[in-house]
Amino acid sequence: MKPVKIGFLGFGTVGQGAATVLTRNAAEISRRIGQDIVVKSASVRNLDRKLDPLLGEVELTQDSESIVNDPDIDVIVEVMGGDEPARTLLLAAIANGKHVVTANKALVACHGADIFEAAREHGVSVAFEAAVAGGIPVIKSIREGLAGNKIQWVAGIINGTCNYILTEMLQKGREFEDVLEEAKALGYAEADPTFDIEGIDAAHKLTILASIAFGVPLQFEAVHIEGISSITREDTAYAQELGYRIKHLGMAIDTGNGIELRVHPTLIPERRLIANVDGVMNAVLIQADAVGPTLYYGAGAGAEPTGSSVVADIMDVVRVATASVDNRVPTLAFQHDALIDTQSIKSADFQTSYYLRILAEDKPGVMAEISRVLADEAISIEAIVQKEPVDDSGKLPIVLLTKRIAEGSMNNAITKLESLSAIEGNVTRIRMETLAGS
Amino acid sequence: MKPVKIGFLGFGTVGQGAATVLTRNAAEISRRIGQDIVVKSASVRNLDRKLDPLLGEVELTQDSESIVNDPDIDVIVEVMGGDEPARTLLLAAIANGKHVVTANKALVACHGADIFEAAREHGVSVAFEAAVAGGIPVIKSIREGLAGNKIQWVAGIINGTCNYILTEMLQKGREFEDVLEEAKALGYAEADPTFDIEGIDAAHKLTILASIAFGVPLQFEAVHIEGISSITREDTAYAQELGYRIKHLGMAIDTGNGIELRVHPTLIPERRLIANVDGVMNAVLIQADAVGPTLYYGAGAGAEPTGSSVVADIMDVVRVATASVDNRVPTLAFQHDALIDTQSIKSADFQTSYYLRILAEDKPGVMAEISRVLADEAISIEAIVQKEPVDDSGKLPIVLLTKRIAEGSMNNAITKLESLSAIEGNVTRIRMETLAGS
Repeated sequence: MKPVKIGFLGFGTVGQGAATVLTRNAAEISRRIGQDIVVKSASVRNLDRKLDPLLGEVELTQDSESIVNDPDIDVIVEVMGGDEPARTLLLAAIANGKHVVTANKALVACHGADIFEAAREHGVSVAFEAAVAGGIPVIKSIREGLAGNKIQWVAGIINGTCNYILTEMLQKGREFEDVLEEAKALGYAEADPTFDIEGIDAAHKLTILASIAFGVPLQFEAVHIEGISSITREDTAYAQELGYRIKHLGMAIDTGNGIELRVHPTLIPERRLIANVDGVMNAVLIQADAVGPTLYYGAGAGAEPTGSSVVADIMDVVRVATASVDNRVPTLAFQHDALIDTQSIKSADFQTSYYLRILAEDKPGVMAEISRVLADEAISIEAIVQKEPVDDSGKLPIVLLTKRIAEGSMNNAITKLESLSAIEGNVTRIRMETLAGS
Repeated sequence: MKPVKIGFLGFGTVGQGAATVLTRNAAEISRRIGQDIVVKSASVRNLDRKLDPLLGEVELTQDSESIVNDPDIDVIVEVMGGDEPARTLLLAAIANGKHVVTANKALVACHGADIFEAAREHGVSVAFEAAVAGGIPVIKSIREGLAGNKIQWVAGIINGTCNYILTEMLQKGREFEDVLEEAKALGYAEADPTFDIEGIDAAHKLTILASIAFGVPLQFEAVHIEGISSITREDTAYAQELGYRIKHLGMAIDTGNGIELRVHPTLIPERRLIANVDGVMNAVLIQADAVGPTLYYGAGAGAEPTGSSVVADIMDVVRVATASVDNRVPTLAFQHDALIDTQSIKSADFQTSYYLRILAEDKPGVMAEISRVLADEAISIEAIVQKEPVDDSGKLPIVLLTKRIAEGSMNNAITKLESLSAIEGNVTRIRMETLAGS
């Protein structure tokens, strides 16, 4: 049988990682799939770049169009990142009848609908396991492994940079900025880490997870997004004293009245397995009606872990090429005409519990004022801890845990709290989820 | 499109669980797969049994052969358990051109080769996700999600009864027998719990995992099997004091010189995520060359969790029915003619570290005698702890952790230790694994 030929658009960390895995494990892969898979060519910005000798046979070009137009290439792997020219090149490849594998989460989250429609028209597959949680086969697990279930919610640690920073803040008592600088130096964080620490990257991934979990259209713009830059090392320590860990979670919840899509720091009970996922590792916890909770853990980034998912996608795409198009696993898990445009719930209507940290003057009556504001919004207090002063200002940090309440009520309460003369600066608010049953 | 019709062989807990999921989630399943799936009939021992009203349309019969011979049935689900008549019925179904889904781990582990060969001859699929780790899609993850990897080892908590008993012994200080009786009453353990607590059930599952991880034939007879009945609550407590948890693991290790297949209680560092998988839950940790460690966690048993895997298999089987046989995912992950009969390593050659518990007289020179025996077998000691007496005998428990050594050397050392006059009874030996990198 003639080998399957692959062309890469972009050949950076992930591209070379995937090509290395394909080449090093060629015999093993051929034993599994019954065909040889060969990397034919890759487009790069700079032709002088040095490659691992293992990749010596790969033809390099600066002309990406020559790859998508090469009749000898069966599958295109897009690992350029960004919107353009990735989108235009993928559409051209699809129009040429090529199957497509991409690791580009932003592209899938924001332009997936167009790309998938083009793929349907041309009878080709689009696969994107590497776009979410790196090497963890979570797209496959949701789309196929849990296909018999009605999924109730998904909660994922899906940005390794955020998880690394929060882990270091807790375990070593380090400041946010200090860890961030180190993460950049170690290559965990990009030179411009905004996408990671402000939650944009996690929101792209959550958009994809929510679509395949619930059978709803991709709707990045509906995600409520918060990053981790407002979390202090004191917050991580106070949370631990109360039996919780702070994790940056992407959550998609089918409430029955609509879908909550949210990315934010979250207190979760330390006894949950996912609370113990530390460092750069990722994990996705899924609650579904038949199976209950399942969790998928592994590396969320890196050359070969992400390459592992790219290679699995290539093998899937090659395998199902002989199946009738209607019988392939649907791109977004549900048949394209069976997506339901379920309403996204506005953040003011999110229901959750809260951790609040308030810096208050050390004088009588302050606690009474705070309690009254919360009571006026019907917010019940679960626990209150008054902490030692952290500086010489004489102000005391007060940490409160509340019961579940609509976010709109909490917004009102925080506005009122911040206007109290005895309270200094902003109230820090971190949402809290029990992830019950997991 | 005409609905896909399913016939069940056996309709106990798992069968009814799967049928309930198929029926309750029929609309969701149809949105995913684009076809309706209907449970037509099921064979039962007793026709008077009461079913959930949801399953009112299912035709019950005592004649299993009528189901495998029904031309109207597309897919047979075998959930009878045991060797016969399950094996004969499945072979008959396959000969009739029907696809087959089974949750029967013993059957797959011991008779899989014959069944898979028959399926190849007749061009039908055999799927068995539900045979390992209940609702966790770990077969799919290894066979497809990690298909680009060379898998180095697999370590799984794959028997919920053992995990429940060990968790209770540690967390509540209860005795083995006491927890076992309770597990029977709660339905976690069978009336005859031998298969669970002696490790047979885990060995069946490990046989399947090893085959699809490494591309080797199913070889149940090569598994070294130990259960948990020799573990005391003191062992679980001593291990915790030393920073470990005792878990009953199935391990398959590709050493480069052959494959170690072993099922036994194991000390693992408490900081590993898998060490924190408690109660009846299952988890499988996989170390692979490209992706590194990944872990899959969820319910390992129960009606609907296991049913979830059965339904996913049915959907897979229906989906790939139009793909050419050569392009389907191979039953054992590798092409049937690409399995390599790699040598299984004998237990005497296993390399691991050990926890030893020795009951010794409280007199001078005992520790010197023990140390000399170990030194004679070139066994290095990592840690020694002398514990308080547990009874009035005056004997002291001594707990030792050793460095890695061949099991044959440890066997010799234990024989000599047990012959020392200062040592009472048997030496308890529990293997220890770092599961490094996870």
